[in-house]
Amino acid sequence: MRIVLDAMGTDHHPEPEIYAAVEAVRRWGDPIYLVGPRDVLAPRLEAYPDVRDRIHIVHASQVFCHGEKPGQVLRQKPDASMAVGIHMLKEGEADAFVTMGDTGGALAYALLILGRIRGVRRPALIAPVPTRAGKYCAILDVGANAECKPEYLLQFGLMAAVYVEHLWGRENPQVGLLANGEEPTKGTPLVQEAHRLMAASSLNFVGNVEPKEVFAGEVDVAVTDGFTGNVVLKTMEALTKLITDALKEGLTLSWQTKLGALLAKSGLRRMKSRLLDPVEIGAVPLLGVNGLVFIGHGRFQGPAVLSGIARAREAVAMDLVGKLRDRIAASLTRQKVEASG
Amino acid sequence: MRIVLDAMGTDHHPEPEIYAAVEAVRRWGDPIYLVGPRDVLAPRLEAYPDVRDRIHIVHASQVFCHGEKPGQVLRQKPDASMAVGIHMLKEGEADAFVTMGDTGGALAYALLILGRIRGVRRPALIAPVPTRAGKYCAILDVGANAECKPEYLLQFGLMAAVYVEHLWGRENPQVGLLANGEEPTKGTPLVQEAHRLMAASSLNFVGNVEPKEVFAGEVDVAVTDGFTGNVVLKTMEALTKLITDALKEGLTLSWQTKLGALLAKSGLRRMKSRLLDPVEIGAVPLLGVNGLVFIGHGRFQGPAVLSGIARAREAVAMDLVGKLRDRIAASLTRQKVEASG
Repeated sequence: MRIVLDAMGTDHHPEPEIYAAVEAVRRWGDPIYLVGPRDVLAPRLEAYPDVRDRIHIVHASQVFCHGEKPGQVLRQKPDASMAVGIHMLKEGEADAFVTMGDTGGALAYALLILGRIRGVRRPALIAPVPTRAGKYCAILDVGANAECKPEYLLQFGLMAAVYVEHLWGRENPQVGLLANGEEPTKGTPLVQEAHRLMAASSLNFVGNVEPKEVFAGEVDVAVTDGFTGNVVLKTMEALTKLITDALKEGLTLSWQTKLGALLAKSGLRRMKSRLLDPVEIGAVPLLGVNGLVFIGHGRFQGPAVLSGIARAREAVAMDLVGKLRDRIAASLTRQKVEASG
Repeated sequence: MRIVLDAMGTDHHPEPEIYAAVEAVRRWGDPIYLVGPRDVLAPRLEAYPDVRDRIHIVHASQVFCHGEKPGQVLRQKPDASMAVGIHMLKEGEADAFVTMGDTGGALAYALLILGRIRGVRRPALIAPVPTRAGKYCAILDVGANAECKPEYLLQFGLMAAVYVEHLWGRENPQVGLLANGEEPTKGTPLVQEAHRLMAASSLNFVGNVEPKEVFAGEVDVAVTDGFTGNVVLKTMEALTKLITDALKEGLTLSWQTKLGALLAKSGLRRMKSRLLDPVEIGAVPLLGVNGLVFIGHGRFQGPAVLSGIARAREAVAMDLVGKLRDRIAASLTRQKVEASG
């Protein structure tokens, strides 16, 4: 299995990436292709003689930075590490690309270099959210498309169903449409029309869902547009941090609370395991582009980057792109048959 | 001060409402107008001889229930407790109306009976969210308008600025526009155009904000459309519950964690005080209608209903409707001057 890792994605690049590359080789044995400036990477890798021969540096002279405009990436930064890594997918020289770099940049390079899976209108970013039931619910789009059409949302549902079925083992996954109420009349015109399309599709569609159903684990997939999904995901991240910080602050208030926290340690650990853990998730795939592109947070350290590689390996193993291709093709055939019938 | 309380709003009506009415009279002395079926309310009030003469029953023969269609409320339920209570505002017989009933119903009755403040395009529901800074940030619209236009969002900002200035004492409040990124180019066309309008307005506008800025307390007001705001607020409620439930579960895992929790009690209480507390909030005002209408949760018990009355009293005391009227009028004058200049 050939994983390409962008060495320049995290805020502290390339150290977290080098950690992840080294550990990935030690753990799984397969080589890692590390993309970035050779003069930066080569000396650092000398410290790991046990895996040095299985970490292949792929030279890239440029870096696409967080917050840069992704408008004309290929013209302005044709040799960015992201571009070089994604080109390897395109050329069949690698199976998946993992980056902690800018989402907009990765999306732009992926679209320009790989293009979309045949029939896919828009790619989408999918993210897992923790639920009361102890399992994840997948939410998408969490940021690839601020502006969506109803057909995009239907396709997001189809792609996510493939994802949770094959990566999480959910049979006939339940798909909901995120809305401000359960009735089909709720929501914006976009939501109302997407509801109609999804209800008429091959999806196991349960209708509109509110956040409480999502967190209760009542659906496997929650579909929304990339603006709402992004704001919701960021709300979750920020609120989880607010609450856990307030807990930390409370538990360090006095020697008595500190002793209490020490005694309750196993319980606090259990609590933490029920929350969104970005480190465990590592990276999420960009569904719908013609190749496996996984994107994580720029602020990540080595262990989270390693998790990102783990997620990419799972997707390679079950041929995620091939399965998405089949489902989208089947859906288009179904639509054609219905249109002609 | 004359507060009208819908006796039939909570899921367990009218007990929580009667508790709140009794306690309100005991606390503030002013009479409470309790709207609902006389035969249901009168016998229950006999148990409170100390305040009985200051709780005035206003008879209403119907109830608008949670989840009912608010389409033709006035024709179908002209004598609902909500309708009767809001009519009292219209007739100048009361200063504020408080209900834990259905939001859509309250909105429909308020619009039909009171109408909007002159110049206001759409009313909005405003809600406080807790922040790291220990103070609230106001977010709106959290559910009155799923579908918004840029001008609505500008007006939401103006109305919220009045609200946080006069009710929370924030001078020259900072207003942000909730978005999926800080750059003005981010967001949907709605957000981009609202950004332009707000930047050109009299608001102390700080531009787009992401949830992490909201939770950091970097703005006093976060403006969004009623679909996004509703989903974000419900995400916050559901996630706060998920995390606090996971904490409870963890802390009751064994005798050791239970002992730890006991020792850490003051710290846990401190933590809880930093979170969203619907009971303390009680009810939120519908900004932009021509009268003070406060709406709370149907699941609330007596103390939360009492908080709702407290919030309404604060708004009456500072003449919220009058101040909103002035700000909207000034904004319209400003727009006219600019258009003619």
